[in-house]
Amino acid sequence: MTQAQPAFDVQRYMRGVGENARAAARHMARAGTDAKNAALEAIATAVGDAAAEILAANRSDLQSAQRDNLDCALLDRLELNSDRVAAMAEGLRQIAVLPDPIGAIDDMRFRPSGIQVGRMRVPLGVVGIIYESRPNVTADAAGLCLKSGNAVILRGGSEAIQSNLAIAACIKIGLEQAGLPADSVQVLDITDRAAVGALIQLPEFVDVIVPRGGRGLIERISRESLVPVIKHLDGICHVYIDDDADPDKAIRIAYNAKTQRYGTCCTMETLLIAESMAARVLPELVTMYRAAGVELRGCERSRELDGSLQVATEADWSTEYLAPVLSIRIVAGLDAAMDHIQRYGSRHTDAVVTENLAKGRRFLAEVDSSSVMINASTRFADGFEYGLGAEIGVSTDKLHARGPVGLEGLTSQKYVVIGDGHIRS
Amino acid sequence: MTQAQPAFDVQRYMRGVGENARAAARHMARAGTDAKNAALEAIATAVGDAAAEILAANRSDLQSAQRDNLDCALLDRLELNSDRVAAMAEGLRQIAVLPDPIGAIDDMRFRPSGIQVGRMRVPLGVVGIIYESRPNVTADAAGLCLKSGNAVILRGGSEAIQSNLAIAACIKIGLEQAGLPADSVQVLDITDRAAVGALIQLPEFVDVIVPRGGRGLIERISRESLVPVIKHLDGICHVYIDDDADPDKAIRIAYNAKTQRYGTCCTMETLLIAESMAARVLPELVTMYRAAGVELRGCERSRELDGSLQVATEADWSTEYLAPVLSIRIVAGLDAAMDHIQRYGSRHTDAVVTENLAKGRRFLAEVDSSSVMINASTRFADGFEYGLGAEIGVSTDKLHARGPVGLEGLTSQKYVVIGDGHIRS
Repeated sequence: MTQAQPAFDVQRYMRGVGENARAAARHMARAGTDAKNAALEAIATAVGDAAAEILAANRSDLQSAQRDNLDCALLDRLELNSDRVAAMAEGLRQIAVLPDPIGAIDDMRFRPSGIQVGRMRVPLGVVGIIYESRPNVTADAAGLCLKSGNAVILRGGSEAIQSNLAIAACIKIGLEQAGLPADSVQVLDITDRAAVGALIQLPEFVDVIVPRGGRGLIERISRESLVPVIKHLDGICHVYIDDDADPDKAIRIAYNAKTQRYGTCCTMETLLIAESMAARVLPELVTMYRAAGVELRGCERSRELDGSLQVATEADWSTEYLAPVLSIRIVAGLDAAMDHIQRYGSRHTDAVVTENLAKGRRFLAEVDSSSVMINASTRFADGFEYGLGAEIGVSTDKLHARGPVGLEGLTSQKYVVIGDGHIRS
Repeated sequence: MTQAQPAFDVQRYMRGVGENARAAARHMARAGTDAKNAALEAIATAVGDAAAEILAANRSDLQSAQRDNLDCALLDRLELNSDRVAAMAEGLRQIAVLPDPIGAIDDMRFRPSGIQVGRMRVPLGVVGIIYESRPNVTADAAGLCLKSGNAVILRGGSEAIQSNLAIAACIKIGLEQAGLPADSVQVLDITDRAAVGALIQLPEFVDVIVPRGGRGLIERISRESLVPVIKHLDGICHVYIDDDADPDKAIRIAYNAKTQRYGTCCTMETLLIAESMAARVLPELVTMYRAAGVELRGCERSRELDGSLQVATEADWSTEYLAPVLSIRIVAGLDAAMDHIQRYGSRHTDAVVTENLAKGRRFLAEVDSSSVMINASTRFADGFEYGLGAEIGVSTDKLHARGPVGLEGLTSQKYVVIGDGHIRS
C-alpha cells in the first residue's frame, strides 16, 4: 500500500529552524572572541577557495533570472564576479578585526545602597534577515551576526538561491572548523514565499527582523510581523545652502551629495537654497549637474532665475529618485528650509551648508533625522564612513538603532549588579 | 427640522489627539531645560494647591469602584490620600532636579575622511502610555515625558478618570505658566475602550506605546499595535544559592528578595539551592519564611530535608505569585541552576549568591535576564535604586530599553556630522 506524500508544512519547518536558531544562540552568546574570529577567517578562506563554485552557482541564477526577464538593475545586483567574491572574503576579515562588543561593561558605579550597578553588552539572540538579490548580503550579514554573538536566519531572494547556497556551504565549513554550532547561521534553502510569513510570526524564537529590500517588502513585513523590525524606509535627503554659506563649499557639497552615487539612500534628492544665495550658486551648479547628465526640476522662483529648469511638481518634493534627477527649491531661509524638511523629508539624512554657528547649531538640534550634518555631503551617512566597520542596514526607526546599524545595533545591554550580601531596606 | 446627532467617531477623535501631540512634540524637542524644569515645578505646586480637589475627585472614583465591586487590590492602587498627593508633587520636583538628557553629544570623533561624527540624544517624539487604576502614574509619566522633551498621550483606566482629570488640570496650569504647549501632555477624557485600539494604530503620530498593567492588556496591545511597544511582562525572578555561597549572606538575600515586598515584579518567586548548601541554609530560611507567613512549596529533594513543605508542581516553576508564596528547588550546581532559569524564568531579574569569582562571572555573562546580580537582593531591580531617578516602567524586551526605563529610555540618538566642506570621494 502506498501512502499519499504529505504536503510540505512550511509553518512546522520554520518552527524547526527557529528552535535550532534559539539553541545555537545560547551557545553563540558564550562563544569567545577567538572562536568567533577564527570562524570569520575560516569562512573567508572557504569563500576564496570556493570562488569557482560560487561563480558557477551565480551563473546559474543569472541564467534563470534572464529567462524570467528580471530587470537590469536586479541583474546587476545579482551578478557576482571574481572581484566581488574577493571583496566578500575581505569584508569577513575586516569584521574579524573589529573589537568584540560582547561582554563590555559600561558605567559601573557605586550606588548609595552600596551595590555596584553597570550595563553589560549582550547579543540580541536570534536575528532574521530578509533580503533580495544581492548574494554578498549572505556573507556580510552572517559575519556581523556571528561577531556580535547572535544566531541568524537568512532568507534571500529566490532569484539568488544557488549563489546563496554556495556561500552557505562556505559558512558551514568555517563554523565547523572553529567549533561553533552549524545552526548559528541558517541560510534557508526553501524559496516558498510562506517561509517569510512564518518567520515573522515566531517571537519565541526570533528577536529581531531586518528586512532589506524595496518599500513594499519592508512595509508588509512591518505590518505583519510579531517580531520587532529594524526598518529602513526611504531616503529623501536634503542639502540646504544657507544665506551664510561659503559658496565654494556649498557648490562642492551639493554636487557631491547628488552625483557621487545616484542609487544610494543617502544621495541628496532635493536641494534647498536660501534666496540670497541662489544667484551666486545656482548657475554654476546647473552647469555642473547638466554636464553630469542630471535632470533638474525647479520651483517657480528657481525657474525665474533659470528658465531651462523643468517644473517641479508637489510630488517631486516627496520622491526618492535614486536616479540622476534633482528637485531644487529656493526658500526664505533656515526656518523655511527646516519646515520643508519636516514636511517632505523621510528623516534619513539632511545637511546644512553655513558658516554661522548659531544656525548650524539650530539645524543639528531641530532637524529630526537619523543623520544631521553641517558642511558635509549627505553621502557620508554610511556605516564604514562613521567608523562602525560595517553595516547591516540603515534604520529610519527611532527605537533601538537609528541611522547606520553596525555590530552595536545587533546587541542590547542588560544591567549587572554586584553586592556583598546587600539587601533592600 | 432637526438633524440626528452624529455618532461619536473615536477614530477621528484620536487622529486629532495624535496630530496635536505631533505638533506639540516638535515644540517640546526644542524646549530649553529651564522651561521644562519650570513646568515641572509649576505642576508640582499646582498639585499641592489642588490637593483637596484631587482627593475629592478620587473619592468619587472610589465610590464608583465600590459600586462596581472592583477588587481590593485595585481599590488600594486607586486610592489617594494626602501623603500620596504630596509624594506625587515631590516626584515631579525630583524629576526637575535630574540632568536634562536632551542634546547631549557622545563619542564625537574625527574620521579618516576629516569629518567629525558623534551622536546626539533626542526625544522619541510622541509617547502613548496606557495604564490602569494608579492615578499617580498620570503625574509621574507626564513628568518623565516632559523632561525628556516628548509629547505624551495618557490613557488611564476608566475607574480613575475623575482623579486623572483633576491631575490633568494641574498639569495644564504648569505647562501654561512655563509657556509650553498644553498639548504636550494630553490626558484622554474619554473612557471608550476603542480609544486604545485607535491610539495603537497611529504610527504616523505616535512613536512608542508603553502599556502598564496586567499581562492580558500588554499581550493584546503588543499583538495589535502598529506602533513599537515597550513591554513589561512577568517577573519570575530567582535567587540561586551556590555551593560557594557565604551562608549568612545567602540567608539574608533570600529572605529579603522574597519578603521585603510581595507584589513587585522583582520579588523572588523561586529559590534555587545547591545540594551541598541545602542542609546548611534551608532549615533557618524555612523558620524565617514561616514566621513571615510565607507559604513554601518544595521539590522532592527539598521535601526530603523538610517534610513540612508543600509539594511544588511543574506549574509552580513558571508562576509569578506576587504573593507570600515561594517555590524552592534543590539543584546539582551552577549549570543546573542556569538551566532552570533559562527554562522557567521570564528574563527579568536573577541573582547568584557565591564567593567564587569564576562562577559569579559565568552567571553574569550567561543568564539572559534584564538584570543579573551577584550577592544582592533581586529587589534592587528598580529605576530609583539603579540611579535613573525615576522609571516609566521595566522593560522585558531586548530591543531599545531593557530593564528599568528612565529618561534615557524615552530618548534616542541621532548621528551628527560636522565637516568644513567635506565631500565623499
